[in-house]
Amino acid sequence: MADKKLVAATFTPFDSKCEVNLSQIGPYIDYLTKKQGVKSVFVNGTTGESLSLSVAERKMLAKEWCEKANGKMEVIVHVGCMSLKDSQELAKHAVEIKADAIAVMAPFFLKLKTAEALKLYLQEVSSAAPVLPFYYYHIPAITGVHVPARDVIAGIQELIPVFRGVKFSGTDLMDLGQCVSSSPPQWSFLYGVDEQLLAGLAMGADGAVGSTYNYLGCHVNKLIAAFEKHDLDQARKIQFKLQELLGFATNFGFDLGVNKQVMNDVSGLLLGPPRLPVMPCPPTHAQAIAKKYFELFTEC
Amino acid sequence: MADKKLVAATFTPFDSKCEVNLSQIGPYIDYLTKKQGVKSVFVNGTTGESLSLSVAERKMLAKEWCEKANGKMEVIVHVGCMSLKDSQELAKHAVEIKADAIAVMAPFFLKLKTAEALKLYLQEVSSAAPVLPFYYYHIPAITGVHVPARDVIAGIQELIPVFRGVKFSGTDLMDLGQCVSSSPPQWSFLYGVDEQLLAGLAMGADGAVGSTYNYLGCHVNKLIAAFEKHDLDQARKIQFKLQELLGFATNFGFDLGVNKQVMNDVSGLLLGPPRLPVMPCPPTHAQAIAKKYFELFTEC
Amino acid sequence: MADKKLVAATFTPFDSKCEVNLSQIGPYIDYLTKKQGVKSVFVNGTTGESLSLSVAERKMLAKEWCEKANGKMEVIVHVGCMSLKDSQELAKHAVEIKADAIAVMAPFFLKLKTAEALKLYLQEVSSAAPVLPFYYYHIPAITGVHVPARDVIAGIQELIPVFRGVKFSGTDLMDLGQCVSSSPPQWSFLYGVDEQLLAGLAMGADGAVGSTYNYLGCHVNKLIAAFEKHDLDQARKIQFKLQELLGFATNFGFDLGVNKQVMNDVSGLLLGPPRLPVMPCPPTHAQAIAKKYFELFTEC
Amino acid sequence: MADKKLVAATFTPFDSKCEVNLSQIGPYIDYLTKKQGVKSVFVNGTTGESLSLSVAERKMLAKEWCEKANGKMEVIVHVGCMSLKDSQELAKHAVEIKADAIAVMAPFFLKLKTAEALKLYLQEVSSAAPVLPFYYYHIPAITGVHVPARDVIAGIQELIPVFRGVKFSGTDLMDLGQCVSSSPPQWSFLYGVDEQLLAGLAMGADGAVGSTYNYLGCHVNKLIAAFEKHDLDQARKIQFKLQELLGFATNFGFDLGVNKQVMNDVSGLLLGPPRLPVMPCPPTHAQAIAKKYFELFTEC
Repeated sequence: MADKKLVAATFTPFDSKCEVNLSQIGPYIDYLTKKQGVKSVFVNGTTGESLSLSVAERKMLAKEWCEKANGKMEVIVHVGCMSLKDSQELAKHAVEIKADAIAVMAPFFLKLKTAEALKLYLQEVSSAAPVLPFYYYHIPAITGVHVPARDVIAGIQELIPVFRGVKFSGTDLMDLGQCVSSSPPQWSFLYGVDEQLLAGLAMGADGAVGSTYNYLGCHVNKLIAAFEKHDLDQARKIQFKLQELLGFATNFGFDLGVNKQVMNDVSGLLLGPPRLPVMPCPPTHAQAIAKKYFELFTEC
Repeated sequence: MADKKLVAATFTPFDSKCEVNLSQIGPYIDYLTKKQGVKSVFVNGTTGESLSLSVAERKMLAKEWCEKANGKMEVIVHVGCMSLKDSQELAKHAVEIKADAIAVMAPFFLKLKTAEALKLYLQEVSSAAPVLPFYYYHIPAITGVHVPARDVIAGIQELIPVFRGVKFSGTDLMDLGQCVSSSPPQWSFLYGVDEQLLAGLAMGADGAVGSTYNYLGCHVNKLIAAFEKHDLDQARKIQFKLQELLGFATNFGFDLGVNKQVMNDVSGLLLGPPRLPVMPCPPTHAQAIAKKYFELFTEC
Repeated sequence: MADKKLVAATFTPFDSKCEVNLSQIGPYIDYLTKKQGVKSVFVNGTTGESLSLSVAERKMLAKEWCEKANGKMEVIVHVGCMSLKDSQELAKHAVEIKADAIAVMAPFFLKLKTAEALKLYLQEVSSAAPVLPFYYYHIPAITGVHVPARDVIAGIQELIPVFRGVKFSGTDLMDLGQCVSSSPPQWSFLYGVDEQLLAGLAMGADGAVGSTYNYLGCHVNKLIAAFEKHDLDQARKIQFKLQELLGFATNFGFDLGVNKQVMNDVSGLLLGPPRLPVMPCPPTHAQAIAKKYFELFTEC
Repeated sequence: MADKKLVAATFTPFDSKCEVNLSQIGPYIDYLTKKQGVKSVFVNGTTGESLSLSVAERKMLAKEWCEKANGKMEVIVHVGCMSLKDSQELAKHAVEIKADAIAVMAPFFLKLKTAEALKLYLQEVSSAAPVLPFYYYHIPAITGVHVPARDVIAGIQELIPVFRGVKFSGTDLMDLGQCVSSSPPQWSFLYGVDEQLLAGLAMGADGAVGSTYNYLGCHVNKLIAAFEKHDLDQARKIQFKLQELLGFATNFGFDLGVNKQVMNDVSGLLLGPPRLPVMPCPPTHAQAIAKKYFELFTEC
């Protein structure tokens, strides 16, 4: 197991009526820890369809993850919402359920344009859970908020003493590099673009967080281990296989509905379909992708 | 008063702590009806910072607007959220409080890509309030959902029998034209880009909905009246003054915080500052814009 | 015939080897003047694949158009290039061949970001043909240069005494409105988005320039005439038919190759295929669109 | 000196009237080879303001570079233009002047949308210089042509037997990875985003081409050497300094005019100002950046 952290951004289990299905979370944790060698989860994030859930549903899910993961996995709970009030409520709740950390994305209805506004916003969320380690979740392709992460984190410890790092889901690697080079060593930069993880690691990322690690965790642990041993050829080999899988999946419109069904097919878990506005994946599409998966990746 | 409808997209009154301030809604209604000649409001929309509010706050606001407006104004309640469940809850509530209609924007966290998915989503919301007239709120610049409105409304009466029209806040006027030319006459297309309203009217829009009508309603009623009398020169004259005001305001970064403070300064109402992530407007900025307003527009 | 000007943006005739075919220009002029009632052309613009031509080819074409159109049509020659030197050479040549006016788009390789830089650039081109009336060709969707036209034309008569107006091929109608309201009456704003011409006219445009007027000129002359008589219902009816045709064509990927072949099919002229990088249109596609054309539009 | 190639994308020397100044090319070559340890140049590319030059000027420049570099440096001549004819003429000329290779970007006036069209276009250019090694120059941020490079190069050896590789100036590193993993070993992928070169190398790039290597070549050679020795910490240290310099420069609007003046100030060469539409750099801006340069980078 590498020093660099590997985090799975979890899917939210639904039943066939798209209602939250807590019963799958225990088995999900077993699958991640035992089959994939994943020791950290990022719950209620993009992969978890968080903003498609009500606040009450997000609480239920976060609680179940924290209880079932207790002692087995680290749980980072994403509490980002469109509404500051909702985020504060979720942050408070994260304290109660003993989450290991919280993360917050920029709200993106009325788009803020300055690092100053974003920092004030993040500070307001953190102030509702002042003891919990805090991550900024940088994902400009989803939020449309293109403030560089380096500007967001500059001096942020003055505003958020528990600031701990960034889930960096962006492709601007100069921005990542400048985050890494300007930050205290105890901050973590977890790279969130699975298909180019190796590039993020080269630029100094401290780990990875993504959706494909739900079913590729054990292989990506090997990628990370190879990287840490400076065996770039081996790391690149695994990265290229991951790219080949995603390139193949893209032919089927690789959205969250497809991704979730691939996870169902590969893992045998029953995480159900996605919720609207995401459309369910035609079964044959996921099957073709799962077949490709098994061709590319043998048992770990 | 013109046959074509003029709708003010209302601001949400906050107190100095950015908490909802219901006490201003009565005076706000008086101002709109008596000073601006506006007979319809679009509540909890973009101007109302809706997604920056909790579901509970949106209910409080919608209820107060419906009660106080009763008999004086038509109230369209926007119930769009990121989460279908939240939207359904607000739609049900809109029935209880006797709203005149509801409107729903496309959710935009996990972006849908097809008209089919959007129609299914809208149908699910409408099904929670099956008696209420229903508007689709088309605002691609905010949502990033670029499905043409014409594709959304094609055959939508099969899915949503109470479908009534579109708040069309987009600049693709071929799309607007095709909506108009392909729709039954009882549907309404309310154009939502204030600075080019005249263009929307020329293309066949049935009215206007926007934030500047909070303080320019009486002048825009004249624009509409001139248009209906085929006096395009006069209509254009008013449109150009509105553009001049907005062009001037743009020099001060005309975002919702600025817009809201201009309303405060012009109307004398106490609608307070905006809520984060929107930053409050420096007083001198709003004052300069209000000054320009009074230079351009005399008493109605 | 309306006071407002209708200008056809001409296709460039090629032979089957994609070499310039001057022999079709005479018949093309006859077709436009006699069948379409079009009295002005915009030569070597976007529709004319200008930047896909060499400087020598553009000269040949401009010369032939000026000679053959002499006394029959007004000829505006587009001399915009990526290279200022090339534009200056074409501007000089336009004087020699007695063009009626020149037009220049913003260069867009190394993108300028300020109105100041664009004005200096335009001034340099005009200085090579200081007697020729000069139009700025505003087409941000092609150039990616998003400087508002109103900023470009502010004070431009100090730099370009022969400045005459703008070919405004953009959808920002507040920008168009502010151009119109801030300009001396002798300047012309020719709207260049065919599918929403009526909106441009409502906002004060002085005419229209576009590719579809090659085969829809006579109908769009009627649209303009109806607009000038304040018969918006009639104008809208024609606009909606134009939109229906373009909407139908869009199903076939309505690019320049398709557009050119539709012109061939409708007019009977032999303008040939487009040049690479534009791909030729599959014949059945253009035929289907031409069929739709004849269904929608009867003889003028 | 590393096996991986380092290529400087050269500036075009102008005199004070923005006319081509061939006399600086000899000294420029001496500077690159002796002071920077750079052995390859990419001439008439983006940095060289190529499309701001006439075809005749590009020929003069290419000829001078090839003659003066003969035996000292490899010369890749960029022959991409908006017009296929112009590109073919430059490709033919490149054979005459004994260039080592040519490169071509996608034309971007009438934007092609498919890999098929782009391949046909590139084939037509190569056919004018069928013996010269051929590179595709992938730079979507400039061209707006977002066809993945992997689709462009798939099977391209059937169309262009002399195909040799890609100047990959894009940030989509999955695309780069898939190019690398799907290509024969003799093809080269030269990464063109200087500020994240290390990421490109990690993903398998065979070298680097960029504008900053004009004045940072010797330091980036060390970065590459460190990378090849698997000393990522050292490589990252140099990369971070390059990022710091560019981050600092960005505060001054780091466009080509600024970049060129920094080169003048750092190298002592007299490359002159840029040509319109690029504006010259205020001297104090370049001086501040040059000062930063000398603080960050000591003699090589």
